[in-house]
Amino acid sequence: MNDNLYAKVKRRTYEILEVARPNDKASRVVDIILVCLILINVVLIIADTFELPPLASKIGGVVETASVIIFTLEYILRFWSADLSYPGIPPFLARLRYMVTFSALIDLISLLPSYISAISANFMVLRMLRVIRLFRVFKLNRYTHALRDIGEVFRKKASQLISSMLVVLILMLISAVLMYDAEHEAQPKVFDNALSGLWWAIATVTTVGYGDIYPVTAVGRVMSAIIALLCIGLVAVPTEIITSGFSEQISQKKVEKNDKSKKSNGQDEDTKKFCPYCGHKLD
Amino acid sequence: MNDNLYAKVKRRTYEILEVARPNDKASRVVDIILVCLILINVVLIIADTFELPPLASKIGGVVETASVIIFTLEYILRFWSADLSYPGIPPFLARLRYMVTFSALIDLISLLPSYISAISANFMVLRMLRVIRLFRVFKLNRYTHALRDIGEVFRKKASQLISSMLVVLILMLISAVLMYDAEHEAQPKVFDNALSGLWWAIATVTTVGYGDIYPVTAVGRVMSAIIALLCIGLVAVPTEIITSGFSEQISQKKVEKNDKSKKSNGQDEDTKKFCPYCGHKLD
Amino acid sequence: MNDNLYAKVKRRTYEILEVARPNDKASRVVDIILVCLILINVVLIIADTFELPPLASKIGGVVETASVIIFTLEYILRFWSADLSYPGIPPFLARLRYMVTFSALIDLISLLPSYISAISANFMVLRMLRVIRLFRVFKLNRYTHALRDIGEVFRKKASQLISSMLVVLILMLISAVLMYDAEHEAQPKVFDNALSGLWWAIATVTTVGYGDIYPVTAVGRVMSAIIALLCIGLVAVPTEIITSGFSEQISQKKVEKNDKSKKSNGQDEDTKKFCPYCGHKLD
Amino acid sequence: MNDNLYAKVKRRTYEILEVARPNDKASRVVDIILVCLILINVVLIIADTFELPPLASKIGGVVETASVIIFTLEYILRFWSADLSYPGIPPFLARLRYMVTFSALIDLISLLPSYISAISANFMVLRMLRVIRLFRVFKLNRYTHALRDIGEVFRKKASQLISSMLVVLILMLISAVLMYDAEHEAQPKVFDNALSGLWWAIATVTTVGYGDIYPVTAVGRVMSAIIALLCIGLVAVPTEIITSGFSEQISQKKVEKNDKSKKSNGQDEDTKKFCPYCGHKLD
Repeated sequence: MNDNLYAKVKRRTYEILEVARPNDKASRVVDIILVCLILINVVLIIADTFELPPLASKIGGVVETASVIIFTLEYILRFWSADLSYPGIPPFLARLRYMVTFSALIDLISLLPSYISAISANFMVLRMLRVIRLFRVFKLNRYTHALRDIGEVFRKKASQLISSMLVVLILMLISAVLMYDAEHEAQPKVFDNALSGLWWAIATVTTVGYGDIYPVTAVGRVMSAIIALLCIGLVAVPTEIITSGFSEQISQKKVEKNDKSKKSNGQDEDTKKFCPYCGHKLD
Repeated sequence: MNDNLYAKVKRRTYEILEVARPNDKASRVVDIILVCLILINVVLIIADTFELPPLASKIGGVVETASVIIFTLEYILRFWSADLSYPGIPPFLARLRYMVTFSALIDLISLLPSYISAISANFMVLRMLRVIRLFRVFKLNRYTHALRDIGEVFRKKASQLISSMLVVLILMLISAVLMYDAEHEAQPKVFDNALSGLWWAIATVTTVGYGDIYPVTAVGRVMSAIIALLCIGLVAVPTEIITSGFSEQISQKKVEKNDKSKKSNGQDEDTKKFCPYCGHKLD
Repeated sequence: MNDNLYAKVKRRTYEILEVARPNDKASRVVDIILVCLILINVVLIIADTFELPPLASKIGGVVETASVIIFTLEYILRFWSADLSYPGIPPFLARLRYMVTFSALIDLISLLPSYISAISANFMVLRMLRVIRLFRVFKLNRYTHALRDIGEVFRKKASQLISSMLVVLILMLISAVLMYDAEHEAQPKVFDNALSGLWWAIATVTTVGYGDIYPVTAVGRVMSAIIALLCIGLVAVPTEIITSGFSEQISQKKVEKNDKSKKSNGQDEDTKKFCPYCGHKLD
Repeated sequence: MNDNLYAKVKRRTYEILEVARPNDKASRVVDIILVCLILINVVLIIADTFELPPLASKIGGVVETASVIIFTLEYILRFWSADLSYPGIPPFLARLRYMVTFSALIDLISLLPSYISAISANFMVLRMLRVIRLFRVFKLNRYTHALRDIGEVFRKKASQLISSMLVVLILMLISAVLMYDAEHEAQPKVFDNALSGLWWAIATVTTVGYGDIYPVTAVGRVMSAIIALLCIGLVAVPTEIITSGFSEQISQKKVEKNDKSKKSNGQDEDTKKFCPYCGHKLD
């Protein structure tokens, strides 16, 4: 009887912590509280870089401590109820398996800094910790699949992306050395070495053009014009790969949905293929 | 008999104020006058920010007053004849319903400042009012469906846009804090807090690159290069979503037109649709 | 007999001046000479903006005079033989009709400055003439159909382009006034009126970002970020319309070629339509 | 017997130097060593532009000498075993044919500077040689087909690219002269001649916008806005041609693969092709 209650409480905890189903009000409220807390933490981390009045710092510290307690509790409860996610395997292994999921690792890593900072007060360490604490923003990923989608696009298109980036990199390297040779004499302080040339190449081919480094000699400008017109087209290739990867993923999801709805109509179309554009049967 | 005249006048008023049919000259003239008045008002608002000689200011004031009178009259007449737009429901409800349409709200909101400024002469209020008065430019929307098209694209693609913008925002936040930590010591005045880092991130990933803020340290530049190459691809995703949304809408309109023209040829293709890509019949 | 010779000379002149057929060597040589002369003239016009030594100026003047003579001769010969382009109509009308073609107008307009500058030596007039003389570069259009293709794309997509540009313009106007109000107090010299705001809006939404004008206040930066992220997507729409217009035109030309080659195979496919992508027959 | 050993050694040398097959460990090790050596050389060339301490310079010199020896050996061995690549023709001709391949030329050219610098120590020559030595990075091309893919895209789309670039060039030329005329008086030092105008045009239409040169007069700004909005769309055309060229090549490769896998399924579809868009059989 007691065991039954224990199982019931665990089941309910699991349901509440997971993303809310439309009717589950308690789960919905917990979701909203957690999302708000994550956003408050992001604001806090940014506020941390300002020179705050003592009172604000104190409030910030209190909120931070409260967040750590809540997130630690959340982590423990998720860990405890994790065996319900993997029904087939023993609870111990299920929890270990949960611990190495992306979500759980982010949860753990973003908690660590707050515990470490209680021990060490080294400035450099604190700086690093601030960035790691910011990883809490990835906890939002549980509520949106945006980051997972991006990861998938990068995985699918990895070979194309690397191939096109390599070309860009080779051309940028050659541009950098050429530009250093063309401009070093005229601007010895700006183009002080080939890495400055590389910085120029990056600012130019991405078309950011901060304006801190640019050619002034005739040779440098002619080269710059040729490199700009050529490389902007090439830098657009990885960008195009990423955007088309997203479009494909979206249309694929739609086709999958259509496939499912067609199947559920009882039509036997398992062995046929469809045009990704119009879903027309290919003969 | 009198009622009949009243109805006739209202019907004619309604026809004149609505977008002109090809043959209705009176309506066409009113349309052109209103469009010109809107454009004159835009010029006036821009001229308002210059230090004008007294005579020009006076003329501007007269034109503004005249515009307000005409636009108020237009609003009243539209309100009065609004029940003809919703034939099924009682006139009172029809007018209320008209009042909450986008066009009517813009008409009302852009009129308010001129009446408020007659009461208050507070400088800050006047500034706000200038911007609101500029909303008159949205009245042009009645004559071009450009803004409505944009609204539709944003509505249709809302979930995709939000999803991709969220990823960009998360990456920009992390970049901002990283960049602040890398550059704060070298440029304490430029990178004075994490919000400056965010401003840098925005200028970089949109490739605007004003040049007011950029990394100078080696660590900052390497990070900047990676962030730039990565995020420009991701910022291109929402842009791609918007542009592809427009293309789809345009091709959809064409397909609809083709459908209509085919129907008018008497062919019975009511229940069939065509792939926008290959024009193949969808089963 | 004499008439016959006259007609033969005219026919030959016409053939030589028209774009060369593969085997017509004389025509080819004339084409190459004319293209070179156009390019030399472009170099001359650019060189004209430098402070040249007296000798170079003199040589430039001689080349310019020679060019004018040759181009005038070319124009007269083209005018004389123009009736061969329009065989159906009387020679006088054919020549008039030739005179109002794009090519002939460019030929005439780009010649005028050299004759006018012989009369007037007013500095402002000379400046204007330089630009008009540069129109000679359009004469290249006879040898490449690049400009004609662009014109066609702009004509076909005119309504879409205007519609999307109008949205961009409206948003830029509103951004300009908002930005002026946000920044005028902090930077009275930079944001001196709403037109400066418009200049900022143009530099931002095109992502050029010269760096001569940018927001420094918190309000201005937040607004700038929102406007940048929103408008860059919208400015991409006209760009997308132009680029997709070109792609369509290219694929259309291919389809036309395929159509022609299929027709020449004697297949009777007049009444059938083809998918613009794969040329597949639509049922 | 001796001849047989000679042939075996040559065959093995050839196998080792060619890109490794999955099981050939010796070949794989040689590949990795060569790739590392190329990357070390790139780092060396960049390091060369820094003011290095004497020890580092000395180490760099040793590594450079070692690289030259290894690359020379590689070249000789490749040359010696080259006749195995062209089995049909006599060894002498086969080796000559190998010498004029892209890979062999890059190998030779990137070796030359090191031998030339042993003779001449002229500063200008050394600078040129540094750039040529950087060509060693192209040797990587043997292991990735990235550069070959780009070359193919440029070859296939050459006529379209040249045509669209020509339009951009003509418009930039006219913009440059117009801008020079508009701005020369206001900024005689910045817009000192039409070439400065061209430099402005390049920075603007590529949207790099360094900020070293921009219009300040009203006329110049209006022209700049029109040129920017118009030309950015046109500069996007070559970029679009390059990116779509890559997409086509990728999808073509996939179609080829699918064709092959279908063939291996024993289906007789040799003479049929498929639309890359809808996969529909082309007649």
